[in-house]
Amino acid sequence: VITIVALNPALDVTHHVDGVDWAGVNRPAAASATPGGKGVNVARTLRALGAEALLLGLAGGSTGAAIESALGAAGVPAAFTRLAAETRRTFAVVDTRSSDVAIFNEPGPPVRPAEYREFLAAYAAVLPRSAAVVLSGSLPAGLPPDAYAGLIRMAAEAGVPAVLDTSGDPLTLGVAAGPAIVKPNLAELAATAGRELRWCAADGRAGRADEPGGPAGAAADRADVAAAAGKLRADGARAVVVSMSADGLLAVTGEGSWLAIPRPVAGNPTGAGDAVVAGLTYGLTLGWPWPERLRHAAALGSATAVAPVAGEFSASDYRQALDDVRVQTAGRD
Amino acid sequence: VITIVALNPALDVTHHVDGVDWAGVNRPAAASATPGGKGVNVARTLRALGAEALLLGLAGGSTGAAIESALGAAGVPAAFTRLAAETRRTFAVVDTRSSDVAIFNEPGPPVRPAEYREFLAAYAAVLPRSAAVVLSGSLPAGLPPDAYAGLIRMAAEAGVPAVLDTSGDPLTLGVAAGPAIVKPNLAELAATAGRELRWCAADGRAGRADEPGGPAGAAADRADVAAAAGKLRADGARAVVVSMSADGLLAVTGEGSWLAIPRPVAGNPTGAGDAVVAGLTYGLTLGWPWPERLRHAAALGSATAVAPVAGEFSASDYRQALDDVRVQTAGRD
Repeated sequence: VITIVALNPALDVTHHVDGVDWAGVNRPAAASATPGGKGVNVARTLRALGAEALLLGLAGGSTGAAIESALGAAGVPAAFTRLAAETRRTFAVVDTRSSDVAIFNEPGPPVRPAEYREFLAAYAAVLPRSAAVVLSGSLPAGLPPDAYAGLIRMAAEAGVPAVLDTSGDPLTLGVAAGPAIVKPNLAELAATAGRELRWCAADGRAGRADEPGGPAGAAADRADVAAAAGKLRADGARAVVVSMSADGLLAVTGEGSWLAIPRPVAGNPTGAGDAVVAGLTYGLTLGWPWPERLRHAAALGSATAVAPVAGEFSASDYRQALDDVRVQTAGRD
Repeated sequence: VITIVALNPALDVTHHVDGVDWAGVNRPAAASATPGGKGVNVARTLRALGAEALLLGLAGGSTGAAIESALGAAGVPAAFTRLAAETRRTFAVVDTRSSDVAIFNEPGPPVRPAEYREFLAAYAAVLPRSAAVVLSGSLPAGLPPDAYAGLIRMAAEAGVPAVLDTSGDPLTLGVAAGPAIVKPNLAELAATAGRELRWCAADGRAGRADEPGGPAGAAADRADVAAAAGKLRADGARAVVVSMSADGLLAVTGEGSWLAIPRPVAGNPTGAGDAVVAGLTYGLTLGWPWPERLRHAAALGSATAVAPVAGEFSASDYRQALDDVRVQTAGRD
């Protein structure tokens, strides 16, 4: 089973309103409430791929209960340690007239030390039967920034590879604990490097041909991104996959470096990175070679971006995107 | 016990944001979720007055469970018939920089016939020990517009007076069933009369002195409001109390007509009408004379308007407002 850790899940409430009155009373034509947060999205994508997945998380109050019951109805196996505090909501208002989307992210609930100890016991109990663990998203209040590092070390002791998708100190500290894969996006990678990073596609598409420095500068920029990813490998991560939206994925691994470039699609990037994490983890547990892992991960990202709901995708979009992804060795262009 | 019927309660979620980005991601500084809806507000005010109150309602899903548990924590006795569908939320986004408030009211859950029959059985069971029943708010989908009329007739058969606060057909049909008190606001009263109604204070304050018609026109307007209220008495209501925000309450009863005028306050009118209903019902069950009922009802409305949270008020605001209310006989000014 692939174990996905969701320390800070959310109930995502979405209202669709035709022409929002931002200073008055609105009656949404449609309202939905679905489990969300990065770990939940990864688990749903893995389930859609047919992988055996177990979501292990923290949840409290009636919002936590709503997440549990919705995951049960969706067929996503989940086990939550109960919190005294209430799990957070996110609230999205979609103005169907202007296409503006306003998002309101509540702060997560504080986690008490005793509650986290209870979670750690549940985590330790599932490690022996886990093919991989996925650690995804921000840490809730009350947990130290090295919480993911601790979970990666526990997994390593049980011989279980860990995939890490987070940012800031939890990313830097997690890298030092030796995860199998880390998946920063370009901004998160830049934050670890302490400098600006920029990726300009080699063929100069998407209006980037006139970037400062021209083609030679673009090559230097790309080398700089690869160097920052290589630094995370030097710091402890066994492989680094940088997600760069429409520019695809750059993988820097012990077996080589690759670039996976999807066909450009118009869509909603929310959840696309989580689909990439799911694809990378799936390929890892099946022992696929890196180019194959990257091809599926990039295709899942594209198929998720064009789906109307974050964390979902259609089988036909996935199949089409698999055909359209180009995977090439990187570092020599 | 005073029985308050809440057929369409809500979980009121409020986010406070300093400078909302209506097309981007916001992180609310504060988020709260409290039970709401008109019946819930009435019950909380009655509890704050020290009255024995029982909230009887319909609730479903995790939102319904959240309402039940929050009412329990707040010490408001409540008994809900469970619905298969999910109870609605309301979302309020308060921009603490601009003071704009955007409100999003989800549609209520559909009520199945069998669920409403189960509610009716619970209602019938509490009628013999009820001093009064309060029927407040809109009807959820699936109930006929004469649902309140039916509840009023059941109460009458048990010798229990009913207080009705609703609008449209449920109000018109309810009036015909002979409630002890109906409390429309000016707009709701105008809708029953099928004509515009306007109330201009006799002293011409609040910038209304230059209304068309001048003082004579103002007196005619006021007589027109009283006539529309009198029509509801003729149609079956034993007393009619019209709430007119800062202009106070106009009561047309079998014992006379009165006007209760609070001191003007700056505040939020949400929930003030519910406090008025609570005050009127409290005075009814205690057998207070009308001027005393109206003085307390108007004072509770004022004290609730200045409170930061709908349905709450401070004891000192209530005491101060009681001193400030002027009650005068109406119909001769």
